[in-house]
Order: sequence, then C-alpha cells, then structure tokens
Amino acid sequence: MSADGRPALAFGGDYNPEQWPEAMWAEDVALMREAGVNLVSVAIFSWALLEPAEGRYEFGWLDRVLELLHSNGIRVDLANASASPPPWFSHRYPQSLPVTAEGVRLSYGSRQAFCPSSPDYRRAAGALTRALAERYGQHPAVLMWHVHNEYGCHNAHCYCDVSAVAFRDWLRQRYSTLDELNDAWGTAFWSQRYSDWNQILPPRRSGTWVNPTQQLDFWRFSSDELLECFKAEAAILRAHSDRPVTTNFMSFFKPLDYFQWARELDLVSNDHYLIVDDPDPAEELSMAADLMRGLAGGSPWLLMEHSTSAVNWQPRNRAKAPGEMTRNSLQHIARGSDGALFFQWRASAAGAEKYHSALVPHAGRDSRRWAEVLELGGVLARLGELAGSVVEPAEVAILHDWQSRWAAELDSHPSVDLSPMAGARQLYSALWRSGVRCDFTHPRADFSGYRVLLAPHLYLLSAEHARALTAFVEAGGTVLVTYFSGIVDERDHLHLGGYPGALRELLGIRMEEFYPLLAGESAPLTEYGSGAIWSELGRTEGAEQLAGYAEGPVAGSPAITRHSVGAGQAWYLGTTLSDDHLGDLLSEILAQAGVRALLPGLPPGVEVVVRRAATGARFTFVLNHTGEPVSVELDGTELVTGEEASRALLVPAGAVRVVRGG
Amino acid sequence: MSADGRPALAFGGDYNPEQWPEAMWAEDVALMREAGVNLVSVAIFSWALLEPAEGRYEFGWLDRVLELLHSNGIRVDLANASASPPPWFSHRYPQSLPVTAEGVRLSYGSRQAFCPSSPDYRRAAGALTRALAERYGQHPAVLMWHVHNEYGCHNAHCYCDVSAVAFRDWLRQRYSTLDELNDAWGTAFWSQRYSDWNQILPPRRSGTWVNPTQQLDFWRFSSDELLECFKAEAAILRAHSDRPVTTNFMSFFKPLDYFQWARELDLVSNDHYLIVDDPDPAEELSMAADLMRGLAGGSPWLLMEHSTSAVNWQPRNRAKAPGEMTRNSLQHIARGSDGALFFQWRASAAGAEKYHSALVPHAGRDSRRWAEVLELGGVLARLGELAGSVVEPAEVAILHDWQSRWAAELDSHPSVDLSPMAGARQLYSALWRSGVRCDFTHPRADFSGYRVLLAPHLYLLSAEHARALTAFVEAGGTVLVTYFSGIVDERDHLHLGGYPGALRELLGIRMEEFYPLLAGESAPLTEYGSGAIWSELGRTEGAEQLAGYAEGPVAGSPAITRHSVGAGQAWYLGTTLSDDHLGDLLSEILAQAGVRALLPGLPPGVEVVVRRAATGARFTFVLNHTGEPVSVELDGTELVTGEEASRALLVPAGAVRVVRGG
Amino acid sequence: MSADGRPALAFGGDYNPEQWPEAMWAEDVALMREAGVNLVSVAIFSWALLEPAEGRYEFGWLDRVLELLHSNGIRVDLANASASPPPWFSHRYPQSLPVTAEGVRLSYGSRQAFCPSSPDYRRAAGALTRALAERYGQHPAVLMWHVHNEYGCHNAHCYCDVSAVAFRDWLRQRYSTLDELNDAWGTAFWSQRYSDWNQILPPRRSGTWVNPTQQLDFWRFSSDELLECFKAEAAILRAHSDRPVTTNFMSFFKPLDYFQWARELDLVSNDHYLIVDDPDPAEELSMAADLMRGLAGGSPWLLMEHSTSAVNWQPRNRAKAPGEMTRNSLQHIARGSDGALFFQWRASAAGAEKYHSALVPHAGRDSRRWAEVLELGGVLARLGELAGSVVEPAEVAILHDWQSRWAAELDSHPSVDLSPMAGARQLYSALWRSGVRCDFTHPRADFSGYRVLLAPHLYLLSAEHARALTAFVEAGGTVLVTYFSGIVDERDHLHLGGYPGALRELLGIRMEEFYPLLAGESAPLTEYGSGAIWSELGRTEGAEQLAGYAEGPVAGSPAITRHSVGAGQAWYLGTTLSDDHLGDLLSEILAQAGVRALLPGLPPGVEVVVRRAATGARFTFVLNHTGEPVSVELDGTELVTGEEASRALLVPAGAVRVVRGG
Repeated sequence: MSADGRPALAFGGDYNPEQWPEAMWAEDVALMREAGVNLVSVAIFSWALLEPAEGRYEFGWLDRVLELLHSNGIRVDLANASASPPPWFSHRYPQSLPVTAEGVRLSYGSRQAFCPSSPDYRRAAGALTRALAERYGQHPAVLMWHVHNEYGCHNAHCYCDVSAVAFRDWLRQRYSTLDELNDAWGTAFWSQRYSDWNQILPPRRSGTWVNPTQQLDFWRFSSDELLECFKAEAAILRAHSDRPVTTNFMSFFKPLDYFQWARELDLVSNDHYLIVDDPDPAEELSMAADLMRGLAGGSPWLLMEHSTSAVNWQPRNRAKAPGEMTRNSLQHIARGSDGALFFQWRASAAGAEKYHSALVPHAGRDSRRWAEVLELGGVLARLGELAGSVVEPAEVAILHDWQSRWAAELDSHPSVDLSPMAGARQLYSALWRSGVRCDFTHPRADFSGYRVLLAPHLYLLSAEHARALTAFVEAGGTVLVTYFSGIVDERDHLHLGGYPGALRELLGIRMEEFYPLLAGESAPLTEYGSGAIWSELGRTEGAEQLAGYAEGPVAGSPAITRHSVGAGQAWYLGTTLSDDHLGDLLSEILAQAGVRALLPGLPPGVEVVVRRAATGARFTFVLNHTGEPVSVELDGTELVTGEEASRALLVPAGAVRVVRGG
Repeated sequence: MSADGRPALAFGGDYNPEQWPEAMWAEDVALMREAGVNLVSVAIFSWALLEPAEGRYEFGWLDRVLELLHSNGIRVDLANASASPPPWFSHRYPQSLPVTAEGVRLSYGSRQAFCPSSPDYRRAAGALTRALAERYGQHPAVLMWHVHNEYGCHNAHCYCDVSAVAFRDWLRQRYSTLDELNDAWGTAFWSQRYSDWNQILPPRRSGTWVNPTQQLDFWRFSSDELLECFKAEAAILRAHSDRPVTTNFMSFFKPLDYFQWARELDLVSNDHYLIVDDPDPAEELSMAADLMRGLAGGSPWLLMEHSTSAVNWQPRNRAKAPGEMTRNSLQHIARGSDGALFFQWRASAAGAEKYHSALVPHAGRDSRRWAEVLELGGVLARLGELAGSVVEPAEVAILHDWQSRWAAELDSHPSVDLSPMAGARQLYSALWRSGVRCDFTHPRADFSGYRVLLAPHLYLLSAEHARALTAFVEAGGTVLVTYFSGIVDERDHLHLGGYPGALRELLGIRMEEFYPLLAGESAPLTEYGSGAIWSELGRTEGAEQLAGYAEGPVAGSPAITRHSVGAGQAWYLGTTLSDDHLGDLLSEILAQAGVRALLPGLPPGVEVVVRRAATGARFTFVLNHTGEPVSVELDGTELVTGEEASRALLVPAGAVRVVRGG
Repeated sequence: MSADGRPALAFGGDYNPEQWPEAMWAEDVALMREAGVNLVSVAIFSWALLEPAEGRYEFGWLDRVLELLHSNGIRVDLANASASPPPWFSHRYPQSLPVTAEGVRLSYGSRQAFCPSSPDYRRAAGALTRALAERYGQHPAVLMWHVHNEYGCHNAHCYCDVSAVAFRDWLRQRYSTLDELNDAWGTAFWSQRYSDWNQILPPRRSGTWVNPTQQLDFWRFSSDELLECFKAEAAILRAHSDRPVTTNFMSFFKPLDYFQWARELDLVSNDHYLIVDDPDPAEELSMAADLMRGLAGGSPWLLMEHSTSAVNWQPRNRAKAPGEMTRNSLQHIARGSDGALFFQWRASAAGAEKYHSALVPHAGRDSRRWAEVLELGGVLARLGELAGSVVEPAEVAILHDWQSRWAAELDSHPSVDLSPMAGARQLYSALWRSGVRCDFTHPRADFSGYRVLLAPHLYLLSAEHARALTAFVEAGGTVLVTYFSGIVDERDHLHLGGYPGALRELLGIRMEEFYPLLAGESAPLTEYGSGAIWSELGRTEGAEQLAGYAEGPVAGSPAITRHSVGAGQAWYLGTTLSDDHLGDLLSEILAQAGVRALLPGLPPGVEVVVRRAATGARFTFVLNHTGEPVSVELDGTELVTGEEASRALLVPAGAVRVVRGG
C-alpha cells in the first residue's frame, strides 16, 4: 500500500490544506515525512472551493496539493467532496434542504444540509464527482476514492415533500399494489387505509404513534436513499478510475443498514471514536472493529478516522493518556484494519471542530502529542508486513440485523428498557472477558464455519430466516436466542400462536404473555441469580428448562432453556441476567459447543488476536489494557520492539506486542 | 341488557373484525359465546372502510358482522366511526389537520388527526353518522351508539386559523362586547388591549406567558368545541334511532369538562387503564369509578374499556397477575358500572397497539389469559341481577371542577408543586384507607344529601358558588377547604382584600401573603406534624386555630382552622400534611360530622361497597386487595361462588365476594 | 431628587393606574404619600392605551395621572411605552413578530413580541416616542425617561428574513469584503465559503453545530440591533426634553453587552430579583449591584425594580421574611444605588404577574407587607443625604467581557462544565467572604487605580488587550488568570503555538493539551487540595510552579503558577479549586498585592461598604446577613435608628445600620 510498492499499513489522516495558507503546505509535508505518514484524505469538505459557482471548477489548488504529496511519496484518499454542498447551492436550491418530522426546514451553516432525495443535490453532486473523476481518475497520487463523508450523520431522515414522492416510488417497488401496502402496514387499524398512492407520506409528527410498518419502511427507504446517492457517485468514479472506492462508516450507526451498504464498497472503512461515558472503551472499540471485519466479509478494512486524543462533540471531552493513541490504533489493526488514519492532520484554528485533537496539535511539534505521533509512525512502519493479512476466523458470531433493530426500537412496545444494542453488547462483553473472539453477521448470511450463533433480541425474523437458523442447529450448530426474538415478520406483523413465533419450534418453548419488569425490579430465578427488564409466562414444549422464575406472577415459567434439535442445540434466555451470571451461562454454552479462548487463563483486559498472512505467517497481538504488566507464553519475533520473544513475553501495562510466529 | 331481555352485566369489548380475514369471524363469535360475551363495540375506527371515497359507502361487511353477532345473541355498541378520518379525507382537506401552539400542522398516519373546529371534518363526520344512523338505527343487534372515541385524546387543542375564527365566535358569545373581553382578560396589563375582534388569537407560543384568562378561555372553548362535535353527531343518531347514545370518557382527563359533557350523554361510559407507576392502583381505579358515578348522577355507568392485562403505551407495560383482571372488573362494577368491557376482543397482529392485551391473546385459547376470560365471563353471568342497581349514596363528596383545575394549573403561579389532582387524590386516599366512600361533584351541583364536602385547591370560585357552599354549611354541613381555594373568580381575577377571597368569611380566616415552601422544605406545625409545599401569613377572624406554624417567617399564622357557621362547620387546611396526619385530621372531621365507615375495623386494602336494587336487595361487594385472606361478617348468598355466607365470610387474598342480603 | 429639591433617595415603583378604575387613583396617591413614595414609573406597558389605533393618540388619562402625581409631589419616571406593541400593531404587521431559530414565528398575547430589526416596529415606536416627548418633554412631573423595558428579555435573537437582511448589513460594516468575512468565519471548514452576501443567514437550526464565528457575530449583532432601537428612541427624547434617559438593565443578562450599552445611558438603572435556588442570595445581590456600579463608571445608579416579596416566575416563589425587603433595598443602596424602586406599586388582580408581590398587596393596608413598606419609606427618608454620594473605590476588579462569555459558551468546546459566570461568581464569593470589595470592569477599560485584576475564563482576548493586561502587570499590578483564558482572538480563532496563547508570555507558562475532567472527577494537586472540571498538560516557561498535578495523565504539569513581570505579578490557576482552597489562594494573592478588608475580622455574612459624599462625609453601611447580632467598631451618627454610634455599634440579626462619620 505504500508508494514504493512494499506492503505497508496506512498511517495518516484527513488533510485539509485549504484551512491554511499555501505557504504552510511544505511544512505540512515535511512533518508528514518525519512521522511516516503515507496516506491522507483530501478534499472531503472542499466543494465550495472546488466549485465556487455552479459549473465553474477551480482545481488549481488541488492539483498543487496532489503534486506536492505525490512528489513526497504520500498517497491520497481523494474525496469526491459531495459531503457538504456550498452555500451558493443551498441558497439557489432551498428545496434541497432537509426537513424534520415537525416540518422544520434545516438551514445550511453547519454541514451535510441536503435532502437525500433531492434531484438538485444528486445532479450537482454527480457533476462534481464527474469533474473530479475525469481530472484525477488516473492521478498517480490517488490510491483510493473517498465518497462523501459519514453518510446520514445529520440528514438520515428527511420528511419533505420531495422525500414523500421518493418514498412513494420506493414503496411502489416494494409493494406492487396499494392493497399489498395496506395489508403490510395493517391499515385496517385506526382507519388508516390508503385509497391512492398520493395519500402516503413520510411518518411526520402526528398526534400519537404513526403506523409502525410505515415507520419501519421509512427507515428502510432512508437507508436505501442514501445508498442510491453513494452508488450513483461510485459508478461515476469507477467509470473513470480503477482505484478502489470507499465511504467511511460510523460503527453501529443506526440509520444505515451497513450490511446492505458494504456490498457496494470496494473497501470497508470506518470512523471510530471513544465514548467518554462507556464503561469499557477498549471493549467497545473491539466490538466496532469486529463489526467492520464482518461487514468486510473477513477481509482487511481500514480505520479511516479516529482521534489522537480528545474530540470536541461530547459533553466533556477526555484527552488520551500516554500510550493510549498507539494502543487504540493497534487494537483496530489487530482486528483487521490495514492501518490507522486520523481526523485530522493539523488541528483547526477556527470552526466547529477546532477543539478536536489532531496529529499536529495547536501547540505544534513541541508537544507530547507529536512525540507520540512519531512513535506510532515508527511502530506502524515496523508492522508493515501485516498489510493484507486476515484475522483468524472466529467460531462464534453475533447476529446483528439493522432492520430488526429498527423494528425493535419502535414506539409502543412492551418495555423501553429493551435494546438490541445493549443485548448485543452484554453478550459481546461476556465473550470479551472470556477471551473468545466473535464475528458479526446477519440472518441472511452463510452460517457455515461457525460453531455458535448468538441472537440478541432478534425481534424481526422472517419464517425463511428462522428456517435457516434451524438448519444451522440441525447440522450441529449451537444457537443462543434472547427474549423478544422471532416476534414479528418483515412487515412487523406478529407470528401468532405463542411467542417467540418464528423460533418457537426451534427453541422448544411456548410463551403466552410478556411480563416486563419495572425500573429497578428483578425477578428471582431458580438458577443464575435473577432477571431484569423482562419476564414471561409460558412453558417448555420439548426443551429442557435450566432455570425458571422462582416467584411472582410467572412463577414456574421457563427463563433459560436448552433444546436439542438434530445434531445441535438451541438455547433460550428469557430475561436479562447480571453480567456475571450471563458469563457463567455463556461459558457453559461455549464449553458444550467446544469453543475455547485462544490463550486461556489470561487476566481480564488482556486481549489476544491473531492475523494470518497469505504466506502462512501468524501475527499474535497481545494488548494489555490493564494497569499491570502481564506475561504471555509466545515464541517468535516481537515486531513492536524488534526483540525475540521466547516463551514468556512480558507486556507492560498499557502496551501492545505483536509476535510473528509460524 | 342481554339479548334475551334478562338483566345482565355487559361483558365484551372492542371488536375489530376488519383487521382479520372474514373467514375468522365465525371463530370469533364461537369464542365469544364460549366466554359469555354479550356486548361488543364495532366500527370505532372503520371510517376508511365504510366510506372508502367521499360519499361512497360500503356497508356490506358491516351488515354481515352485525347479522352474525345478532344471530348469536351478541349485542352491539355501534360506533359512528368519526374518531379517525381516513387518509383520503386528510389528503383532500389538509386544512382540517390540527396545528400545535408552535404552528406545527400535525400529519395523519396515526389517529384523530383533525381540528375540532374544521367545517370539513364536521360535515364529513355528520354525513357518515347520518348514513350509519339511517342504515342501522333500528337494527336489532344495536344496543347503543358509541359516538367517536376518547374525544380529545390527541387533538384537544388546535391553534390553527380555523380554530382562531371559531374561538372568536365562542368569545363573542361569552362576552357581548370587546370591552367586556378586555376587562375579563385584564388586557390593560402588558399592553394587550384588543381593538378589533379579528386581532384575537388562540394562545399560540409567544415569547413568555400568554394572558392567563385567554388561556383559560381557550381551555373552555376547546372542551366546548369538541362537545359541539359530539352533540351534532348525537342529534343525528337520535333522529334516526331510539337507542341510547354514549361516548367513552377517560377518567379525570384534563382537557374536557366532563360535568358539562355528561349532561349530553344518555349513558356515561369510561375507559380506564391502570398506571404502572401509581402508588396504589386499586385506589386510583376506585377514584376513577367514583368520578364516573358522579358524572352519571348516581345512576349506573358502563366501563367501556379496560385491559385484560398489559397495555402498550406506558414506558414499561406491566401485565396483570392471576386474578387481577377479574378483581379490576368487579371493582368497577362495585362502584356502579353495569358491566366490564375491554379493549379489545382479539390482540392485533399489526399496528401501533399490537402489544395491547386482549380477550383473545396472540397465543390464542391455549393460555392462562383465555382461561381467566372464561372465568370472568362465568362470574359476570352469575352477577346478572346486579344490572341496574345503584351504589348506596355517599355522605361525603369531593368537589372537582375542571375549570378551576385548568385555572389552577396555569403558569406563573406561586408554586409548581400545587396540583388540584394531587390534592384530591390525597384526600381520596385518606377516605379510601378509612373505609369511607365518597362521591365526586362540582361547585354548581346540589349538595343536599351530603354531610361533608371536601374542596381541594378549589382555586377558581365565583362569589355565587361560594355562597352556595356557605349555605350548605349554615344548614348543618361540614366543609373542608384546602389552600389556594377561592382565590379567583371565573375570569381568573383575584378576590381582593385577603385570601382566600371568596371563602374568607365562611372560613373565618384572613391570609395576607403566600409563603410557598421550597422543594423538600417542610414547615413544622404546632399540631399534625409539619407542612409541605405551602405556608401562608395570616390570622383567624372568627375561626378556631387548631394548628399553627411553629417557626419561620409565618410563625404563629394558622395552618388548620375550624369555623362554626350556622349549624355547620367550615374547616381549613393551609398546607400539605403527611398522609398519616391528613388521615388523622380527616378522621376528626368525619367523626364530628357523624360519618363512619360501612364496615369499620377492616384492614387497609379491603374494600366494601354496596349496590342496592330497585327491589330493595343489597349487594355487598368485598374486594380483598391484600395478600392475606380476610374474614368479614356478612349474611346472605355469595354470588361469585354461589355459597351461602353466614356471618364470617372468608375472602381469599386478591379475591372478590358479592353477598346478596336484605 | 425629591420634588422639593432636597437630596433624597428614590422610593417607589412601577405605577400602572390603567389596570384599575380611575376612582382608585386618589387612594393610590394618598397611600404613596403615607409611605413616602417620591418616584414612580408610569406607562411602561401603556402603548395600547396611548395609541389605540395607528397614529391616533389618547393622552387624556396620562395627563390626569401625571397631574395627580405632580400635585402630590411624586415625580415620574416616564416610559416611552415602546416595550410591548399593541395587538393592532402585530395584527397589522405580522412580519414584525419574532422568529425562533427553528422558524417558529412567535405570537403576540404576552409581551415584547417584535423583531428588533423590524422597520415597522422601529417606525411605530419612534412615532409614539415622539408624541410622548413632545407632550411631556417639559412636564414638571417628569424626572427622567424610561425607554422600553428590559430590552431583549423575550426577543433577544430573531432569525427572520428581515433580521437576515439586517445581519448582512451589520456584517458589511464589520467586514469590508466577503473575503474578510470568509477568513474571519473560517469558512474553509466544512465547505461553508460564501460567494455572495445574500447567502448569509442568521445561525438558524441546522443539522449540527453552526459555524461558531457566525454564532458569535450573531450575538454581537443582536445586542447592537436592540441598542440601535434604544439609541433611536433616546435621541428623540433628548431632542424634546432635558431630562435624563435610562433603560432598565437585568444584571448579568447574557444577550446584551451592557458595557457597550451603558455608554448610551444618562443613568444606569437595574432590575434585580433574588433567585430562590441561589446558594447565597445576599452575595448574588451584591455582585449584581457591583456590576451596575461598574457599568455606571463608579457613579450612582438606580435600582429600578426589585420585589417587596415573592415573584411569580420561578418554580417556587419564596416570599420574603420580615426585614428582608429593607435589608435588600439598603444593600443595593450601599453599593451605589440612589434609591430603591419596586415592581410594582399595587399587586395586579389579573394577568400573568398577579402573583408578583407589590408595595400594596392583594390584602391591602391591613398587612405586614404594608407595615414594612411604611418602615422602609421612613428609613429611606432618613438616609436622604446619601443621594449622590459614591461608593469608595475598590482595589480589586473582575474582568467581565460579554463577548468573551458569548464565545466561551458556544457549543463543541472541551467541557460543558466550564462557565465564565460560574468562574466569576466563585472568585466574587471568595472576595465577599473575605470582606474585600471589588468592581467589575472589562478588558478595554482603564485599569489604573486597581491593584489586582481577576480574569476568570477570559476565553476571547485580542493580542491588543493582552498587551494592556501585560502593561498593567509590568507597572506593578497583580493579575490572576484562570484556565481557558486568552485562547482565541476576536474572530474566535486560536492563538496558536501553545495555550493560553495570548497570555502565554505574561503568565510564563505553556500548555499543550486540555485534559477536561469528567463529571464528579477530581485531580489531586500537590498543594491546594484537588482540581475539578479541568486539567491540562504543559509546563512553566519562566513562572514559578506553586502547585502541580500529583498524578494521572498530566502528572507534574503546573496547576497554579506565579510569574514576576516587571513590577507586578501574573498568577495562573489552571483548574477549579474548592471554595476554601480558592479562598486561601486569593488571600495569598491579595496579601502579596497589599489588599486588605475594610474591617477585617468580621464574621462571614456581615457586609461593610462605604459611600462618600462630595462633602467628604463617609457613610458606612453594616449589613448583618446572619442570624446573630454583631458588634462593629464605628463612630458617628447611625442614620437608620438616629442614634449615636460610639465604638461598638450593635447590629441586630438581619438588620442594617448606616453610620455617618468623617
């Protein structure tokens, strides 16, 4: 990936030279060379400069930037600059501005102020993309294309009249007839039957809950509508350039169905930022990285943005401790990223993100931050041979389905405490603490290769996908399903006859009624402590009851069950356990399925991941997130320090080691 | 009330066959018969089906539904279906959509999306009502008419230009001249004087507090405006049908002055749902039922909707424990309902209320819920002779005045902690715990027959109604007035010269200044513990001071007083006591007034109510809300179990017993 | 200031006779005379009465009011009545109504419902002002002019299209070219470059943070725009009248840069209300009064409004304890007010402020409140000779800059916990508790005369003003700067190269990176306890490190430093200390600077201030805010009681004494 053709991990970040006098660019590039920067993203927010008036392009400054970078051996992730239309555009096409559910037309003045369905926006973005593709499609500095930026970050849903028309068109594709739509949306309820397509609107603010299937379809439509924007721009780039095309994801960002999106990208890339209030940021980072690998189908992906230190958009923006930036970077790489890029190269002097940290801080080179940047550059250079290697396959996968999550989080449900993301996180956390790595996949995927599937609150599940899960178990697989899974079909209609409808047979249980628990309430179980958030009334029908409710209105009903189906086993968890008890349950499930940690016996907070190169070389990452040094039994060459590891590799507190072994 | 002419309690619920294939209807009716269902509400949200295009009616399906029900002996509470206009209507008449105080025009897509003053809505609803009345006015299945549904639930206040015109018309009726309006609204304040009727607007969002009398009149107008809708539709029905007309109330729903509404109904009916977070749901249910009886003038009323188990619209929707559904149903009946209907017959498979419980749950007949439905049906059948009987008159009444409550809860008042509903609830709770039943009435009512009136925070009180209260006391009655009562007249103008202006003479006190207490602050009293929320500076003028403030800026001022007036006594409570101390005070007041519990000595949570038939038969309900069995001294036939009661009737924990005695 | 020409402190309040029958006016004036009222504000909200239709004036009632007052020796602060346009105006000119950032056009119906840039409003307000000035400009009752009322209270920012045009005009004045604006706003960021002035809008609601310099300029514009309104109306008044012109400020009200405003007033006046939840209301009052004196340049100012007891606009409106009204009044006078006026004379019977206390309460004369009013009137009469005297100069000043505060409180900053007002208050509190009085001034002021300047979070500081601070120190002054000062220039652009950019050299420190602390987190220091809210990474460069961070990611970095520069010293405080530790630090700083309390050794809560007359007479106020009597060593005549003080003046709990000495 380096300019000289040798494999290299990407290192660099967003480079916004337009924010600085041209006289500073030479210093920028000199500093990049000093740090070992080899890839920068350029022109992401440059539309206003590149096209100062409609159809008039000014590429001179960008020519000079690319030439300067190229002549210094720094490759470019070139943006098509469609992320934020300039003021002249929004002023000329006010109907292109997005509108909230309450009818507020948002103003420009920040960024990304456009309706995804706006024909004006699409035409203008396409024209700009074409101009850039024609000019730079074969430019030697251009390594890849960066379409847009963080799609949907501020305009995921637009409720304007233009969007209404587009929504109807989308619905006509999904439902061939209005009767079919009426059936799918259940419009017999509350006198909502549509007699003409033109009556259909986005789910604008109404007196009370808007039809849930209408809401769900609007989430689907909105994800698709932005994806159409991406596809159109990517197609233009590909017509003029042979370089790979990406757009930067935002981890588990709710509004976009990234499993659908990922199929359209040549390279999956991600923006990841630590959340100050997260109870375990390293675990959260790991989870996001594993999702990216899942989106990339196991192939390497690219960390397009993270931060050298604090960000500017949280209430209190914690800065990073010594070593933390390097550890974060290597953790992403351990889990499949082929590099570590940052937002941004040089901290801005003005604008809304001037307090976002950067590779070059406000204080300049005379700073601990810059010293750490140099250190990270050195480490990444020593890890260059890792580029292109893949993370060893996992035996466990968590099913994450955006559409099910959208449906599960709609209004007027049994309990506001139920959250598919929280459910996934709690399972992930139990795996993380036990040293068992997992993938993220979705219900429409190929499950072969996995021993265990975890389905947290997989609320929406079609009969077809329920059958696929059943086939997986019958063939010897293990599945753990948690409550409120398999409840509705793709139209958000109940699978009737007892819960969890689509999975009742697989799980060998039958629930009659949900008994959500109140805030702070717990339901004692016969085993595994007590449950929170949820309980239910029902019975086993073939499954073995491992724990039941010990008292209260559902006393005797099953809470944890196991059902042998074919050669496999289907487990059910009907409530939320404490972290410790969930860990115990998961240990039991994994043990029965023959899944074990890579290096058992390590203390919590010590992370081990293996990437394997096409050559057969194995690279074992050991990340010590604890405050104490740890000793690990590993042989081979340690790449961070360059020392030979012989059995007992000592990893200092907060440090990372990467051992190349056979 | 049953189809065969024998007296029967109503049992059934909302039946929405349009949500299901017609092939299922026969099964529905068979299940209804199995359960003993004898009354169902039909077509509440069927406008879109009944009138799929303007002026084109499709009654065939409804003909078949009514025929099927009729042929199976199930009577129908037929809706005029005006509750939710169809999409074609809102799309064609966008000006009919309601507008918030901020100017947001609400969309259709949920329900009840119309401006109450819309001439288009009123015309369309009238036409539909006429078509239904003409077709079904004499249909043998139709037992009664159900106008609209939960008036004002989502559109109680509309601020659109159409509403502005209607508001002005309403104001012209109330105030014959603009000068009168200017005086009433106090527009000399803040330069608000109107010089033309057309300048007057609804109290739309402004920079700060809108004129309070303008706000109060808008509450009055809004209640009246929906009442006009009801009256117009009821008049059409009555012109074509001799069946009684109702609309379902929502307990203490703030926006509608149900005492005004009730006069227009042939039968008072109510929707009641338990609130998960209520500290004592049985007490709250009882209070709502007593209000309904008050609205019905002591006559039987009908529980139109409650739930078999959980609802879907609270943050965490608790499901009902075994026996709870039956106990709730019988509690409503004990306090005057002639039946127990539910929303809804069969749990929906789709739509915003699919997680609302029903008589037939998602799980179907193989469920504890269905078994309890059968059990309840049996109990209600055995209680058939209760139909038409009336609850024995109470000796105590709480004054509840919607207009006073609206005024008391306006902005810019001395303390946000003051709440007429909370004040009423605390008094009700003290009565409930002491086993003394009470009615709800209002300041314009006839007080004869009561020994004690309780006036919690009766903020708005005209001089005329203050005189009526005085006359009641002079004639030997007892009244307890709590603070912030009698403060303003019907225009929200102060009764000047000392608080509580309109009641100063009756109470024999004179307060000079309010001293609201801060959050968590308490004011020690010389007796009855200490006060919260409120204190005041003042003195007695004829009354006896029973407790005063022991310290602080109002030390020595009266907190509890008693004033002998004519043959009666007027008590005043100037702060909020603890529940226990209020109980003590109320016990003293009741004792002095000669009021005692029906069956003294029962433990808290054991409720006793008596209904009396025209035949003279007395039916004593004993509801055991506690977790322990209780023994009650009663003779007669126990109707729930069919056993004879002889002195010591044992009522198991959570159970209800009804003894027919002489 | 009295009608007879003798010096007198003003006593009175807002008099709104239009709210009452004319028959009551004679009683009003008789009561005023009884109480010693000598000044009332008239006609503040009388526009609708004075001009009932456009261009038609009705002055008869006002003529009679002024004549009545004049004939009773009561002078008038006459309003130009522009505070609230009448309904006819807003109805005729709907474009004059203000619009929120979300696009909601606010309704009339409360008060102050106009866009500050509206040409219709400005024309109408000007015409009314002219008519009043012509008629009453030389009226003997008129002592002064009261322009508008509480400018910006509800309409400080308007985002309408008219405001957009005005904003552009303002920006054209500030930035001669669009390029200059683009540079200042940093529009290279996020593709925000403007290519035409017409593209520029107010910072309306957008998808995310609007450009911060755009926001800052909008705050500046909005303050200026209302100031233009004031200046235009004041000019009309001055053209027809020789009486002084004022408008009533609202203490530290954020939207208006009162240091700019004060230059345009003939007399600074203020409205001050106690905030129930304030931890020390007396301290807060004192701080507001000291600000007013700063705005008045040390000259006497006037307390235009406070309350006799409770207000109506807080959640719980505490009423005042016996003696509190008088103590509040005298505290304002001690710190420079030449009187004590109240809102309002007589408590309203209707309208949004009817629960606001007044000189004449609802209860009338038979009340403790009225008795205290008479008592206060007597005290003020005995203090008449104080009128025109000035508070003795302070040696310490706090720098308060509205523009810096606006900038510091913009979004997307390192920590939401940082607040310039909280920082100023904590410093003020430490001074208050130590008995050292301070002034408020701003960075563009003349610092001579001060020994110590305190700069809490002076975020925005131009290089020029930083040089002025440096010059102050070099000349022997002492400055204490707290963190996040000197960070940006007037365009909100970073001073690059290390924090605190503009003050780095003066302070002799260099910070590299901010490390905000999380909620509840503290950072142990080597001295002075531990820090909250903030920490930073850096080092001294010439300064002496008095305390450093003891552990964590910035261990060893300086937290408190002192730098000798020229003849003075520059202190830096890099975190938030506990109140006690800040007190210790400040004591040390003051001691080194030679500043001491006026009367050292008094217990906390005993306040001492001296006013000095042109005659040389010194008036020493002793205000005892505690619950215990206190003895103070003072000689002279005590004016409140009329007794001679001889060494040990006893001041009872809650009382105030004023001793005239040499």
